[in-house]
Amino acid sequence: MSSASSIKQGWHNLIERNIVMQFIDVTLRGCAQVMFQNNPLTGLLFFMAIFLGGYLENLPYIGFACLFATVIATLTAYISKIDLASLRSGLYGYNACLVGVALPTFLDNTPLLWFTIALGSIVSVIATLSLADFLKSWKVAALTAPFVLVTWTILLASYAFFAIKGIALPKADLSQQYIDASSQSVDYLQQFTPDIFRGISEVFLFSSVAVGIIFVAGLAVSSIWAALFAIFGSLLAYMTASLLQADFVNIHTGLYSFSAVLTAIALGSTFNKPSLRVAIYTVIGVIFTVFVQGALDTALAPIGIPTLTMPFVLATWLFLVPNKDLMPQDRQ
Amino acid sequence: MSSASSIKQGWHNLIERNIVMQFIDVTLRGCAQVMFQNNPLTGLLFFMAIFLGGYLENLPYIGFACLFATVIATLTAYISKIDLASLRSGLYGYNACLVGVALPTFLDNTPLLWFTIALGSIVSVIATLSLADFLKSWKVAALTAPFVLVTWTILLASYAFFAIKGIALPKADLSQQYIDASSQSVDYLQQFTPDIFRGISEVFLFSSVAVGIIFVAGLAVSSIWAALFAIFGSLLAYMTASLLQADFVNIHTGLYSFSAVLTAIALGSTFNKPSLRVAIYTVIGVIFTVFVQGALDTALAPIGIPTLTMPFVLATWLFLVPNKDLMPQDRQ
Amino acid sequence: MSSASSIKQGWHNLIERNIVMQFIDVTLRGCAQVMFQNNPLTGLLFFMAIFLGGYLENLPYIGFACLFATVIATLTAYISKIDLASLRSGLYGYNACLVGVALPTFLDNTPLLWFTIALGSIVSVIATLSLADFLKSWKVAALTAPFVLVTWTILLASYAFFAIKGIALPKADLSQQYIDASSQSVDYLQQFTPDIFRGISEVFLFSSVAVGIIFVAGLAVSSIWAALFAIFGSLLAYMTASLLQADFVNIHTGLYSFSAVLTAIALGSTFNKPSLRVAIYTVIGVIFTVFVQGALDTALAPIGIPTLTMPFVLATWLFLVPNKDLMPQDRQ
Repeated sequence: MSSASSIKQGWHNLIERNIVMQFIDVTLRGCAQVMFQNNPLTGLLFFMAIFLGGYLENLPYIGFACLFATVIATLTAYISKIDLASLRSGLYGYNACLVGVALPTFLDNTPLLWFTIALGSIVSVIATLSLADFLKSWKVAALTAPFVLVTWTILLASYAFFAIKGIALPKADLSQQYIDASSQSVDYLQQFTPDIFRGISEVFLFSSVAVGIIFVAGLAVSSIWAALFAIFGSLLAYMTASLLQADFVNIHTGLYSFSAVLTAIALGSTFNKPSLRVAIYTVIGVIFTVFVQGALDTALAPIGIPTLTMPFVLATWLFLVPNKDLMPQDRQ
Repeated sequence: MSSASSIKQGWHNLIERNIVMQFIDVTLRGCAQVMFQNNPLTGLLFFMAIFLGGYLENLPYIGFACLFATVIATLTAYISKIDLASLRSGLYGYNACLVGVALPTFLDNTPLLWFTIALGSIVSVIATLSLADFLKSWKVAALTAPFVLVTWTILLASYAFFAIKGIALPKADLSQQYIDASSQSVDYLQQFTPDIFRGISEVFLFSSVAVGIIFVAGLAVSSIWAALFAIFGSLLAYMTASLLQADFVNIHTGLYSFSAVLTAIALGSTFNKPSLRVAIYTVIGVIFTVFVQGALDTALAPIGIPTLTMPFVLATWLFLVPNKDLMPQDRQ
Repeated sequence: MSSASSIKQGWHNLIERNIVMQFIDVTLRGCAQVMFQNNPLTGLLFFMAIFLGGYLENLPYIGFACLFATVIATLTAYISKIDLASLRSGLYGYNACLVGVALPTFLDNTPLLWFTIALGSIVSVIATLSLADFLKSWKVAALTAPFVLVTWTILLASYAFFAIKGIALPKADLSQQYIDASSQSVDYLQQFTPDIFRGISEVFLFSSVAVGIIFVAGLAVSSIWAALFAIFGSLLAYMTASLLQADFVNIHTGLYSFSAVLTAIALGSTFNKPSLRVAIYTVIGVIFTVFVQGALDTALAPIGIPTLTMPFVLATWLFLVPNKDLMPQDRQ
């Protein structure tokens, strides 16, 4: 513990003296902030998980795209002379970090993809500033809305532009009631534990147990509570989606869990004092996130884009706005 | 009159002394607030109309679902220690009251439907608080937006969840220009009077003359003006939709009228001093509501959900925001 | 110059003495404000271009519809006793001016079309007041959002109403990835100059070199910078869309340019002090507008309506909100 503290102190001294190390520190924190952690070690573990995830999906450049996007956004924030405390905490990096994972996941690896990642990263900083100003009356954070809005714009635009073509987007189609109940014969219990971690890895659009475990480890080095809420959110969403008899393949790959994971961390660890009331509120919020996930899947079907983390953003805004008095001042 | 007053006084004494009677009073007011009335007798008549409407449509459990939802929301509001004046006026009940009618109208009567109604009712209270906070800068009310947003979410989600399946939702489809003008041979005048009342009953998703008449009676015991504006709104919407040559079946069942009824009550009776200017403004608002109804019908066609009362909400917000100075303080 | 000044002085004296001339002056300014100019001569040139544009497209009544709409909105503003400084600058006319061009472009020329234009013009004034109030916390202008929202509502409604039927609306359809790269053999350079002007004429939904040149002339008599930014925006959007390999027919007719033209004028001439930073910011804003154009084209495809100038509105709001401190006080 004393040794961990002295490493931490050494790191702080280093980043104050050396601008390059500071830049690396801010970039790492940018990645960690995707799950609300202001911790460079968490960011390092997250980046490792992302490189691994890309490698496992045979898209090894995803890790580089994610790093590239986070660096571009961090540079943009430095150049724009933004409020330094937020900048140093990585709050201008996490949206670009997700842009950098999402665009190469859905679009073809063309030269213009990389130009588009750079543009999306710059605009994600502008969108973060814009949304922060937009939301200031309600004292809630922008969450991952800048990432979602910028990425939706680019993915929708990919339908019109041959030079950045979508290769893994859902086909635009009219929704029909899901009626295949044969999934009910699946042995949920056996699938249970790995699926929980797959759900957590889907926050970064991967579906891998190993990647999910590293994300949880990254959370744990920063906050045990955040790690526990992530697991709890994934589990509760899994149970809710199973009870509602959603398509089992989607449950299994974690598509009902990733937004719920973020909702659970946000609601569970944002409030000032843990209590029975906060616990019940978080449970309701996570269950409702599963409904929002199903709803947005249907609503976006005709335009052929994924929900990304918008179910988390919408559910969390809905639940945070009327409870600002329960939040600690510095989280507002 | 003196006798009516003394009954009213007796009721007030009763609900102050007896918590069960107070709870019943608040639940009834919750139902009455769907049409902006703070009156338990109006609520009682409305509930009677809803039970009758469900019975006439061979879905007799709709009345129970509506009562269940209003009770759950009222309980949630009591437990949440919300501002007591609003709570006692029924302002946390009316959105759930509509959720309780809408969900069993569109979804199959499965055990999870009732779980979903309970969840929707609880979330409708959270959404009411959230929207009230969101709208406070503009000093307009949330109207029925919490009901619409929660119900849209659940209806869209029903496409993905086998356990709460939609059985009366519009089929998701691409819109085409309406070109069947044969409806023009219909004798509008003969249909006229019953259709006006059917339009009013559609506020609660029924299409019944008898149900519409009871709603008007419920309004009249609270406010003659509200009853007159309801009839006027339904009539004007009927005439506008006929002039625009909409599908006659839709006009006839009241689908162009129900939002207009609410717009007419809201704009007509919200402003401080009735005047020629207010009258003209209300007429324009009601006519524009018919356009918004047609527009939302088209916009929602590809995602297979009904507009619910959103045309009323959008048109009324548009018309109220620039005229706040004309509203009495307690309506803002 | 001295002669121009004395004409200007004479005009000012005239409009202060004569209410009819003042009304004409305000109507002309209303048209000029579509491109942010408060100048009656600009408005006169714009109206000439619009009449010419309608004539060239064999829809000669478009000019009259545009004039009719601007007059109705100006009258509505006078009757509503709106803040006189804004009214006299034409700020309640420009949205109706665009409504008056858009509705006859997309809808059939029936008697109810003209009723709908009048209604749309009146509601555009209400929407302008409403949006101005809505946006006041963020100190950004409503831009052409009132026009877009009112026109979208009416165009969507035209699908449901036989009496105002759409004849030139895009067919509602599901988007597919654009894959025809044969357009790459087109000689961009030869097409270059005329296409720039066609792009500017598309602000008013025309695709004509002559009309575009008159618009630029109209801008130049009021502000050389505005004229230059219009040309620059059109050029940069043309280059961006070409680089992204959009459908060449759309590039050629100016569909990727018109919103970018408005973004360029708005961002380029709104900021206080022209600087390298403002120049870079405007370039990024214009390029991102092209992405938003492609995105909205895809998003609106299933509901069969055009984007109108919404890509400009969204991109400009996004870029203006975080930079209010760079704007002169009177533009906020």
